[in-house]
Amino acid sequence: MRPKLQSASIYDHWGKSKHFRGNVGCFECHVANEKDPDAYEHYGEMIATIVSPKDCGKCHEKEVKEFSESHHAKGGRILGSLDNILAEVVEGNNGFVTGAHPHGVSAAAVNGCWQCHGSEVKVLDNGRLDPSTWPNTGIGRINPDGSEGACTACHSKHTFSAAQARTPDTCGKCHMGPDHPQIEIFNESKHGIAYYANIDKMALDSPKWVVGEDYNAAPTCATCHMSATKDQPVTHDIGLRISWNNRPAISVRPEVSDAKMGLPGKDIPWQKRRANMANVCINCHNQGYVDAFYKQYDALIDLYHEKFAKPGLALYNAAQPLLTPPKFSNKIDFVWFELWHHEGRRARHGASMMGPDYTHWHGTYEIARNFYTEYIPELKELAQHNLHSNDADKKKAAEALQKLIEETLNHKNHMWFLNKMDPAEKARRDKARNDFKNRYGK
Amino acid sequence: MRPKLQSASIYDHWGKSKHFRGNVGCFECHVANEKDPDAYEHYGEMIATIVSPKDCGKCHEKEVKEFSESHHAKGGRILGSLDNILAEVVEGNNGFVTGAHPHGVSAAAVNGCWQCHGSEVKVLDNGRLDPSTWPNTGIGRINPDGSEGACTACHSKHTFSAAQARTPDTCGKCHMGPDHPQIEIFNESKHGIAYYANIDKMALDSPKWVVGEDYNAAPTCATCHMSATKDQPVTHDIGLRISWNNRPAISVRPEVSDAKMGLPGKDIPWQKRRANMANVCINCHNQGYVDAFYKQYDALIDLYHEKFAKPGLALYNAAQPLLTPPKFSNKIDFVWFELWHHEGRRARHGASMMGPDYTHWHGTYEIARNFYTEYIPELKELAQHNLHSNDADKKKAAEALQKLIEETLNHKNHMWFLNKMDPAEKARRDKARNDFKNRYGK
Amino acid sequence: MRPKLQSASIYDHWGKSKHFRGNVGCFECHVANEKDPDAYEHYGEMIATIVSPKDCGKCHEKEVKEFSESHHAKGGRILGSLDNILAEVVEGNNGFVTGAHPHGVSAAAVNGCWQCHGSEVKVLDNGRLDPSTWPNTGIGRINPDGSEGACTACHSKHTFSAAQARTPDTCGKCHMGPDHPQIEIFNESKHGIAYYANIDKMALDSPKWVVGEDYNAAPTCATCHMSATKDQPVTHDIGLRISWNNRPAISVRPEVSDAKMGLPGKDIPWQKRRANMANVCINCHNQGYVDAFYKQYDALIDLYHEKFAKPGLALYNAAQPLLTPPKFSNKIDFVWFELWHHEGRRARHGASMMGPDYTHWHGTYEIARNFYTEYIPELKELAQHNLHSNDADKKKAAEALQKLIEETLNHKNHMWFLNKMDPAEKARRDKARNDFKNRYGK
Repeated sequence: MRPKLQSASIYDHWGKSKHFRGNVGCFECHVANEKDPDAYEHYGEMIATIVSPKDCGKCHEKEVKEFSESHHAKGGRILGSLDNILAEVVEGNNGFVTGAHPHGVSAAAVNGCWQCHGSEVKVLDNGRLDPSTWPNTGIGRINPDGSEGACTACHSKHTFSAAQARTPDTCGKCHMGPDHPQIEIFNESKHGIAYYANIDKMALDSPKWVVGEDYNAAPTCATCHMSATKDQPVTHDIGLRISWNNRPAISVRPEVSDAKMGLPGKDIPWQKRRANMANVCINCHNQGYVDAFYKQYDALIDLYHEKFAKPGLALYNAAQPLLTPPKFSNKIDFVWFELWHHEGRRARHGASMMGPDYTHWHGTYEIARNFYTEYIPELKELAQHNLHSNDADKKKAAEALQKLIEETLNHKNHMWFLNKMDPAEKARRDKARNDFKNRYGK
Repeated sequence: MRPKLQSASIYDHWGKSKHFRGNVGCFECHVANEKDPDAYEHYGEMIATIVSPKDCGKCHEKEVKEFSESHHAKGGRILGSLDNILAEVVEGNNGFVTGAHPHGVSAAAVNGCWQCHGSEVKVLDNGRLDPSTWPNTGIGRINPDGSEGACTACHSKHTFSAAQARTPDTCGKCHMGPDHPQIEIFNESKHGIAYYANIDKMALDSPKWVVGEDYNAAPTCATCHMSATKDQPVTHDIGLRISWNNRPAISVRPEVSDAKMGLPGKDIPWQKRRANMANVCINCHNQGYVDAFYKQYDALIDLYHEKFAKPGLALYNAAQPLLTPPKFSNKIDFVWFELWHHEGRRARHGASMMGPDYTHWHGTYEIARNFYTEYIPELKELAQHNLHSNDADKKKAAEALQKLIEETLNHKNHMWFLNKMDPAEKARRDKARNDFKNRYGK
Repeated sequence: MRPKLQSASIYDHWGKSKHFRGNVGCFECHVANEKDPDAYEHYGEMIATIVSPKDCGKCHEKEVKEFSESHHAKGGRILGSLDNILAEVVEGNNGFVTGAHPHGVSAAAVNGCWQCHGSEVKVLDNGRLDPSTWPNTGIGRINPDGSEGACTACHSKHTFSAAQARTPDTCGKCHMGPDHPQIEIFNESKHGIAYYANIDKMALDSPKWVVGEDYNAAPTCATCHMSATKDQPVTHDIGLRISWNNRPAISVRPEVSDAKMGLPGKDIPWQKRRANMANVCINCHNQGYVDAFYKQYDALIDLYHEKFAKPGLALYNAAQPLLTPPKFSNKIDFVWFELWHHEGRRARHGASMMGPDYTHWHGTYEIARNFYTEYIPELKELAQHNLHSNDADKKKAAEALQKLIEETLNHKNHMWFLNKMDPAEKARRDKARNDFKNRYGK
């Protein structure tokens, strides 16, 4: 055992952890091999600052394997994607110059994206960690030993508290905000209401934590997405119970995105995953309830797809030849991006977790408002501006875009906008409204 | 007693409820008559899934009567109102086809509006509940037995916990978000700060829960709007202590909206309701404080009315002949809608519950910004665009609109915008500022 | 001792406070001198409603002195600043007429700004407090005795609970919302996650509250900014541990703003203040971690300054001759204001407290979007509109503005927008992306 650290609380946190009882001290986790790129000598021993999933896996093999096969572990790969242009170029510059980034890196990426997605940790010549890449506890961190992930993203600091990892706040570190407000949705939902009213009945610090056995007052994020039921063990592959991946502009089934990332989940169809989730629901709801809930959820996904996402994407593609080349140099780039990436996700996530305000006011309401009052007008102007262009390609593209706009607005999903609602539908609506008024007065 | 359900937690929740002790089992609440549209046989007995206020009222007569006379119970009536065009038509389509909705219904309404306002529950031929209309716990649900409301909106699941119903989170299920952020305002307010710091002193699970007797550390939403004081019993008519109904574009007194809905509250003037509320306040604040608070609150309502709501509405009406007919097909429809329905309510609700950030930054600041930089410019353009119209009616409407814009901006509330502030006022303002600077330095 | 008050809870709160044990009753704090402007007779004694810092300072001399030297105490001075035009003129009117404000005052200021910043409390001829200026617990309240501040802003009502003052919610009363969402950032951060999971281990009601001695589970706002460490006593000067003042458009060092306000902090350089903060951090983090964190934070400030704030301010200044004179009568006034005052602060505060979503999605993302799609287009239009003006000054200003826009966009920070990214940089970016793809597949 080493003498107390300067930061004595770390030692104290560890003393309250299961690691203490299990005789797992500082060295057992921080031990390094001389060849490890980030190894350094410390009181005569070789250690490393970062404890990677590879290190944790020496004892927690199952958990690390599951985690490694999940999207969580791959969060850092966004660094090499085109998406990253936002933080690096549009918002950023090369002003943060460090040993590992002599040409500079964007402080918007360092302080923003990387803190959730994970940095690619770089070791300097002096063995220290490059300050642009560490401190970093992003869940998809790319570690000096080549492993992907950071267990500390959820199992914070040196208590490694399961109780804390089970609180919704832990997930809320990243799953919040305009583009994926899961914590806000949970807080609004009946699940959240029951949780906050019954925290003391949640048995959060129980080693065995089986819903319906050890607690039943409420679920947290972990309950539904990860934790044990009577029939399922806990899993650290976060995608095994979701039946839609709502990340992209058009939702895909999780096995599709798993295949794209080369993950073994490619062989686990969404129906199996939905059954996994239903096996959680069934502890507090009956099967009829669960089935009907999924009908409602799927219907929302379908509405979003058919009315906004698919035509929206087609229009965006048709507009490409008329836009200035750098992505995000046109206002319409942002309008479309927020339609699917912000509002579109809010509607889908809201429905998935029964948070009606996020489904509607933060979701479909904003989608519709921005589709009709921003997106369509911008597209129209773009087409009109280029209809008489001397550039034959642009002229052609403008004509095609204009045609597509007209087709879109004349589709039955949108023709109300042109005051062309189907008379039969209008009659039905009027009748329903009148029946209602007659029953309830004005 | 029946054997344990598949969803055993339900049974367990019930076992912790007062119903258990009172010998009120599953059957006592779920019992149905053969003629009930949603009755079905279950282990040889006729039962129904939905327990409606009519069912609860068999024992809780007083509570159900009060609730039934409140706006809460009437939340479902929005389904037959024009307001509903947003979720049904603008955001929605007919894609969610079910047994009860063969022509389809909007998933935006099902997953959004209906989850707070309540669905009109439909029973299918096979006795099951239509999946577009259930699961649903909206507070104004229209039940198969014709009753309005859902006690389970607040008294969740099978514990029927009064403690949980008393937490602000319960109200926050619906009273949150851009258009009525009451939970956010509470959380910001001194009341919320005291509540979160003192939850353990709130006696939330005490059967008798009289403010000033059983607890005084903080109020929750329930304390002020519903719960008992030394002089008032608990009430389930949520409107009996509010002196403004801030729902409409221009606030009305609650007796006015009660009269419109045919509720007995039409005979209870706002002054009586304000006295009811002051009788809560007085437990922790003195009368002078309460009176001065109401002066501040009323002044904010008056500012909103006189400067923005009344002229805003007049301008919107004047613009009608120049707009394309379908509501929400013009950008200005959204701008005006958000001015009163979102920002305008935030300012009013913020002032009503002493949440200054909602009053100002989320409220009057956004109202003013959008009034001057969106609404007025859009209206001006609309007028100018039609001033030389060949359509004589449009030309006339454009002239009238332009005149009204000018009159509005030349009113003393707005003439600063034209750089025409009254010289006397300007002098007073300059003097006040200079006096201030002289006292405190630059 | 007086008989129980009408508002008996006040008496009860006091009974639970340390004041009770210390034999400090109602009179000891509320005592007034006959010459005090707000003194009145109450059961034969002269008392005052407001207990000002001057009153509290009779016993709590050190705390009041520290507080009085802080920005907190000066919050009310905004009332005399130009900033106040927003709530008084743009959002407000003179509709709230009171004894002390016979010409009227803006209810938007009263219910909004003043509730956080503090009112200037006015005493009416009858000795009562003017209802526009009280109730008010704004932290920079200007009291009838001339003192500045309100201890009750944080030490609420009559329990004067230190535990409550230490909760983040207390700070969140004002430090929240679009322009300084510190509570939201804390809630998102690892610090907040640990706090909410460990409230019961925080020893919030311990008289001695030294981090690392009395608690170490998590920090609250108070821990880092005010409370005791093993080496530092608690301080009520909130600025002694911050190394950037992120309030203005361009961040300044705190000694600079202290000097501007005539505060003794002018002699305390930011390096000393940063060392004070690091002395808190070091309880749970090692020195390398702390140093690297500050590199990340400073880099974000630098990015914001160099890419957006400095060129943004220069452009705004250049646009002045072309704008209509009243501030906030031009849309661009709001766009620039929100760039620095809302989004710019969110990015800076987000980085300062490690809340990545606020740094990025609520911060730099919105800054960039609004800079490129609102600010620059508005400026361009303004310049073009005036390039051929008959007014020679305007023509000249328009030419200068256009030139500055071009220079700005051709700066290496912005030339991506013109599709002119430096080829060497582009090559580096492409290579990095390709390397990444080769390692991780598509």
